[in-house]
Amino acid sequence: MSNATSTDLYEVTMAQSYLSEGMTRSATFSLFVRILPPDRGFLVCAGLDSVLDFLSAYRVDADDVDVFASVLGRQPEDLAPLLGLEFRGEVRAVPEGHIEPPRVEITAPLPQAQLVETYVLNQLNHQTSVASKCARCVLAADGHPVVDFSLRRTHGIEAGHQAARLGAMVGFAGTSNVAAAHSEGLTAVGTMAHSYIEAFGTEEDAFRAFARSHPGPVTFLVDTYDTVRGVATAARVLRDLGLGPGCAIRLDSGDLGALAVQARTILDAADLWETRIVASGGLDEFAVDSLVRSEAPIDTYAVGTRIGVCADAPYLDSAYKLVEYDSRPVMKLSSAKVTAPGRKQVFRRPGYADLIALVDEQPPPDGVPLLESVMREGQRVSERAELDTARRRFMTDLAALPPGARTIRAPAAPKAELSGHLSSLVVDVRRYIEKNLMGDAHGAV
Amino acid sequence: MSNATSTDLYEVTMAQSYLSEGMTRSATFSLFVRILPPDRGFLVCAGLDSVLDFLSAYRVDADDVDVFASVLGRQPEDLAPLLGLEFRGEVRAVPEGHIEPPRVEITAPLPQAQLVETYVLNQLNHQTSVASKCARCVLAADGHPVVDFSLRRTHGIEAGHQAARLGAMVGFAGTSNVAAAHSEGLTAVGTMAHSYIEAFGTEEDAFRAFARSHPGPVTFLVDTYDTVRGVATAARVLRDLGLGPGCAIRLDSGDLGALAVQARTILDAADLWETRIVASGGLDEFAVDSLVRSEAPIDTYAVGTRIGVCADAPYLDSAYKLVEYDSRPVMKLSSAKVTAPGRKQVFRRPGYADLIALVDEQPPPDGVPLLESVMREGQRVSERAELDTARRRFMTDLAALPPGARTIRAPAAPKAELSGHLSSLVVDVRRYIEKNLMGDAHGAV
Repeated sequence: MSNATSTDLYEVTMAQSYLSEGMTRSATFSLFVRILPPDRGFLVCAGLDSVLDFLSAYRVDADDVDVFASVLGRQPEDLAPLLGLEFRGEVRAVPEGHIEPPRVEITAPLPQAQLVETYVLNQLNHQTSVASKCARCVLAADGHPVVDFSLRRTHGIEAGHQAARLGAMVGFAGTSNVAAAHSEGLTAVGTMAHSYIEAFGTEEDAFRAFARSHPGPVTFLVDTYDTVRGVATAARVLRDLGLGPGCAIRLDSGDLGALAVQARTILDAADLWETRIVASGGLDEFAVDSLVRSEAPIDTYAVGTRIGVCADAPYLDSAYKLVEYDSRPVMKLSSAKVTAPGRKQVFRRPGYADLIALVDEQPPPDGVPLLESVMREGQRVSERAELDTARRRFMTDLAALPPGARTIRAPAAPKAELSGHLSSLVVDVRRYIEKNLMGDAHGAV
Repeated sequence: MSNATSTDLYEVTMAQSYLSEGMTRSATFSLFVRILPPDRGFLVCAGLDSVLDFLSAYRVDADDVDVFASVLGRQPEDLAPLLGLEFRGEVRAVPEGHIEPPRVEITAPLPQAQLVETYVLNQLNHQTSVASKCARCVLAADGHPVVDFSLRRTHGIEAGHQAARLGAMVGFAGTSNVAAAHSEGLTAVGTMAHSYIEAFGTEEDAFRAFARSHPGPVTFLVDTYDTVRGVATAARVLRDLGLGPGCAIRLDSGDLGALAVQARTILDAADLWETRIVASGGLDEFAVDSLVRSEAPIDTYAVGTRIGVCADAPYLDSAYKLVEYDSRPVMKLSSAKVTAPGRKQVFRRPGYADLIALVDEQPPPDGVPLLESVMREGQRVSERAELDTARRRFMTDLAALPPGARTIRAPAAPKAELSGHLSSLVVDVRRYIEKNLMGDAHGAV
């Protein structure tokens, strides 16, 4: 099987019907986010690289057709028109790392553009959610390093890998995830769990053994039995061994702010000024923000569970909607879910007062166009982007983000406007649909 | 690379240290859930089969050692003691499908038992969360079929596959996920999206084309432009084509309860008594419960986003703790995170008044032991379990679950008790640790 079976069934039934009806003209689908989740002043675009990988490799092979036939209870011959379909279309999108709700426009023959929907939504939705949550942690930490400890609670290993990569995209300093660190070139972090202390019996034995096994800077976990005593023991061992610079102690439970103050006092009293304090345990951007504002002497924040699953907003209200078929703009009118028709461009203007316009408006609106052509005829326009490139986009956009959008609590997201041309088209298409395309409820049957 | 790099770095640093210290005696780690998430009266154990697959295949090969060395900035020779490690230990666990907070006890030489922590937590945590959410949907639907539409919003494709499988484990009637339906032997469901209607122009043209392409029962999506008119159009087409039994209309927006009443009226007026009504669009167990209680004439509930990501509780407060090393019971004392020492068994007693006891208590407590030996010397005790086996366990347990735990809103989870022996051991081990293992905060440095 290729990746073509990673799909909702209805993409297949629709594609089959399009093919049997001869409806293979060019279609444009637009992926966009209807509304930001609560407590989000911005979103960081992510997932596009995974989507381009998927589209580059997309091909319905004979095994896929067998699977489609099997789940539909049909014969493979019935689904033969799907065999060999590849994605040879165009993709225009806001590249990864930009601070902007994701927007991807895919143009291809209708069956192909439809078939890829599920995967495209899945990746953009999940990766944008997590990248945006990670970015808020970086803002909350206000210059302190943030590291990713999420792998044990993400929704599978694949999701854990993405969390590590997306954290790095927005400035995380490291990850506990070995495979992700290796393949994405990230700094791997992590030293010991409570079990390590327990296996040795005394904390001191454990700390000394760890330092023996791991030459170089070490981090001692100090809260297995009693945090204050654990810090004192760690300090004694660090002093005895002549360690300190580059080393750290980790607090993983209790009142992290208060314990950090006590820990700092003990470390300083032992002249361990350069020994850092790492805090972990249920942290998210709200908790980090509170600790930073209270001036807790914490040097590094390790975030995990709540970030890796994007706990307060684990999904986006995103959609992948047909906006044009065979050069005809189309839209949906369902209550509260009206979609704007036509192919679009988003123009970044000062203060993030973005304008959503039609792609070919004349004269072109002011502002910097955010959607770029990233795939043509099924080929990437440029090489697979390095993580650094996305990180630079993020940092550049972050510098210009309005303060109200950056705040952790009750942020205000910048509002985008529709252009005059696009607003007029919405009115025109609605009028056309109401006049020509809707059924008649009266005496209809 | 094998699966051994799917891990937090600290498992590797600890294992390396255990090996260099000669600490390779038998350890038992216990995976358990500290507290149920809000709005959960029960959890459904899931993820164990994935864990057993992982453990069966676990092996640190030379490529893995290279990866470990690379991310640690060490030479592969430094990590040579890890090379070739396999999992040849024992696993006792509550099997998949049981209604019980997950509990897994892994016994192996300390390094191996430590190295597998991250993956074990990842799978048990995620799969139990989603299975439990799905089970609540089944309860809310009160006998109406529930189907899974979550793939487009799960945290990656792997998570989507699990959601489909776990839904089926607790009684879902189908899934939109093609690959999962095929490999897990599930019923695949789904017909058309709004884009299909829009591509044709009129709803009637779209419905007729779909019926032409897909002989057999069809489901028409009726809310693209105006739901009531859409139902009337669907009814007319179904009548004209002599369809009806096995067919359905799908409502995907608006006030689903009110629209279902109107849709039923229109369908019945057209003598389409056997045409069913499917509802979708942002549904979870709370929304399904409200619709069922209001006696909305909805036949099938399609749940997606909120279920696939387990939106209101996307993680569990689970832990993987060392409870015994070299026959010595151990525990952690950190504030609010005390762990009970020793290897355990859980006894199911009438009314779910479970007793958590030591595994070898004499005389054995009353009740049915829930932890089974599922792996010995790294080999599964029985064949890979069929999904049907887990489903039967779930259905059996569900029949005995107290009503207070089954309710959707403000459920009351049954409370488990610790046995007298286990309570005494907690006290004894705490006393031992306080006397012998903790550092001294006074004049320590």
